[in-house]
Amino acid sequence: MAKHLQRELEKIKKLILTLGALVEERVHMAIKAIETRDADQAEQIIKLDYEIDEMEVEVEEECLKILALHQPVAVDLRFLTSVIKINNDLERIGDEAVNIAERVKFLAASNHFEFRFDFTEMAEKVENMLKRSLDSLVNLDVDLALKICLLDDEVDDLHNESYGTIEAAIKQHTDQVGHLINLLFISRHFERIADHATNISEEVIYLIEGEIVRHGISKEM
Amino acid sequence: MAKHLQRELEKIKKLILTLGALVEERVHMAIKAIETRDADQAEQIIKLDYEIDEMEVEVEEECLKILALHQPVAVDLRFLTSVIKINNDLERIGDEAVNIAERVKFLAASNHFEFRFDFTEMAEKVENMLKRSLDSLVNLDVDLALKICLLDDEVDDLHNESYGTIEAAIKQHTDQVGHLINLLFISRHFERIADHATNISEEVIYLIEGEIVRHGISKEM
Repeated sequence: MAKHLQRELEKIKKLILTLGALVEERVHMAIKAIETRDADQAEQIIKLDYEIDEMEVEVEEECLKILALHQPVAVDLRFLTSVIKINNDLERIGDEAVNIAERVKFLAASNHFEFRFDFTEMAEKVENMLKRSLDSLVNLDVDLALKICLLDDEVDDLHNESYGTIEAAIKQHTDQVGHLINLLFISRHFERIADHATNISEEVIYLIEGEIVRHGISKEM
Repeated sequence: MAKHLQRELEKIKKLILTLGALVEERVHMAIKAIETRDADQAEQIIKLDYEIDEMEVEVEEECLKILALHQPVAVDLRFLTSVIKINNDLERIGDEAVNIAERVKFLAASNHFEFRFDFTEMAEKVENMLKRSLDSLVNLDVDLALKICLLDDEVDDLHNESYGTIEAAIKQHTDQVGHLINLLFISRHFERIADHATNISEEVIYLIEGEIVRHGISKEM
């Protein structure tokens, strides 16, 4: 029975990492679509989101099945509840990639758009956070997970900066308000992806340390 | 043992409903703060958010304790996993109330602000959705829960409308861009609260019907 449970948990781990890789791919596609203003690429991200949704449902159903069949306790129980939450965050990151794709479609539809905002630094940091949060899960690396939580502040700062820049641009280019608002929201969507990557890292810490670090309640860590 | 489990589950139900009531109160405060441009009220919402955060942690810890101690199966297990998710949505609604409060602080800081956007209809619909999603949980009312999912489209439409109106206002009032962007985000935050209320209702349906209706996979229901 115990061996059977361990096999099931291994399967779940593979499943959540497959979902993680899929979500990473979509975020990468979204970033590329911003750079190239590629409406087709954006459309693909939107169309294929059902894959992420279906996989989220599958992971959750598997977790509930294992809970019901094996009634795991202690570390195994904690692992499953963490997976349920990380699963949720990954699906929401997928949604943010879709949100970005929708903004890209608006940007691509514009011929006379001139103001360009460079999201490279923000995009790199966010992709890096997502990648490393999944690494911290694979390797149960609490030090890495803690580092990611700190990176979130850097993305927040970049978001505030870009917000200021785009706001100033809106004042200057009143003929481009619609497009510039799209940039404002893209910045916000990146910030949200960083939040979810932080949630994943906090969940990894919780999984390892058994302590709830969310909401800064254990910020002394 | 079984009776003891039932008592624990009753306690959890009370706890999540207490959290629900607290979150409802904060959303109501946020709506009032928009109307009155009351920075003090907004500050209160931000300051008191820790109460919601702490209660979320408490609900989750209680759920995990019950899972570990009683190893519930079937309907009881499903109830606990639903509570874990609803708990998460409630905390996120609390965050959206904080997000609105932060925007209100910016709005309140402006003396020369003239363009006013009437959020009454949207706010009423969103408050109503939240209230009824919690009612559907209390009464395990699947019909009510299904109705709430449909209301989400109405809020989406209102969000799109307000988006258009505010975008047009930005073009006209370039001296008020910063303030108008705040209105744009308030509209978005309302839309997100409606999304979370929808998530809660979908979770209630799942709890009752044992079917995952998220992501429109079972839209024929």
